[in-house]
Amino acid sequence: MKISILGGTGPQGRGLALRFARAGIEVAIGSREAARAAEAAAQLGALLKPGAAAISGHDIRSAVIAADELVILAVPYSAHDATLESIRDLLVDKVLVDIAVPLAQGDPKRVDMPAAGSATEAAQALLGEGIPVVGALHNVSATVLNDLDHGINCDVLVCGNDLAAKEKVIELIRKLDVAAYNCGPAESARCIEAITPILIRLNISKKVPFSHAGIRICPPDAH
Amino acid sequence: MKISILGGTGPQGRGLALRFARAGIEVAIGSREAARAAEAAAQLGALLKPGAAAISGHDIRSAVIAADELVILAVPYSAHDATLESIRDLLVDKVLVDIAVPLAQGDPKRVDMPAAGSATEAAQALLGEGIPVVGALHNVSATVLNDLDHGINCDVLVCGNDLAAKEKVIELIRKLDVAAYNCGPAESARCIEAITPILIRLNISKKVPFSHAGIRICPPDAH
Repeated sequence: MKISILGGTGPQGRGLALRFARAGIEVAIGSREAARAAEAAAQLGALLKPGAAAISGHDIRSAVIAADELVILAVPYSAHDATLESIRDLLVDKVLVDIAVPLAQGDPKRVDMPAAGSATEAAQALLGEGIPVVGALHNVSATVLNDLDHGINCDVLVCGNDLAAKEKVIELIRKLDVAAYNCGPAESARCIEAITPILIRLNISKKVPFSHAGIRICPPDAH
Repeated sequence: MKISILGGTGPQGRGLALRFARAGIEVAIGSREAARAAEAAAQLGALLKPGAAAISGHDIRSAVIAADELVILAVPYSAHDATLESIRDLLVDKVLVDIAVPLAQGDPKRVDMPAAGSATEAAQALLGEGIPVVGALHNVSATVLNDLDHGINCDVLVCGNDLAAKEKVIELIRKLDVAAYNCGPAESARCIEAITPILIRLNISKKVPFSHAGIRICPPDAH
């Protein structure tokens, strides 16, 4: 299995590439500059133990072509729509996994949603219903992802309008030893994406005794 | 200390009344019919051990008057605005704690937000900035609240535009042995309220092995 991570040289993309490669999934990192992607791929590969799957570096379009099916969009939100437009023709028979959070310019404690309601909905509108968009992995800390000595302290809330596509993404994410839940249609991204600035707020707060917070779905207490 | 719970005869209101009274906080339950409120108060009081604070029953306006400061609005969302309008004049020098979730008519797996963006923002607009509105306790399961043999499996995400009011509400909620976090301005309610239908969806799902789910803010994993 080979996935692609666009924006794979950023902190979120690097952490995801490391985690997936360690779990045995080949990763094609895409960046605007193929050389930067190749450099990042080499650096990340050097952090992994023998037995991990390969991480390779490509320009954005080549990375999409390299993916079997799942393409993770991890570019900064400012490049979200333009990146999608530049790869739309390559996404036939693929699934776009959107991890973008539309943080407000200059204030990461707030969300500034696009007119469509959320980044996931905007991506689905831009690509058309023929290409399934799945929102996922919005709330996981990049620092946590890059710290391979520890588990991921965050369940993954997955949404989108195509059930089969969501199930593929949930199966992929569970390979990271993290719980992933189907949280409904793309519209649920209005909530799920907006959890991230709340976590950022708590991370910054002097009253919260930890940072890199995650959220978890909890069954009723046993006691 | 004496708080008021409007809609205190519903499942959420009853559970909160039990939990707060057990924690030593007097509770004035408000209902459209004072007799129903008195009946519920007597039933709830009988469930508590000696040493708990008193639960009393009143009509809505008398319950507001009975509160020292904090008034919890736990009526069904369909009665949200009308109830606020009927008590607005009594809320001077008080704090309105809004726990309402605007679930879509006929589909509790979706939210149908008011034009203001969320119930909390709608309440703040209706009451005017002179009366602080704090959104809280949206995501806690009524079943969990009413099960006094177990703890509460859900952190409380608190939001609102008045910091002092939020701090009072956070202090109150922590008396229930539950974590409560300041999650920013009233606008954050657009996310926090919308978490509830996602939890309801998971509770209904055959793929999730538990119901009455809560959410918790988690520090990075120790291992």
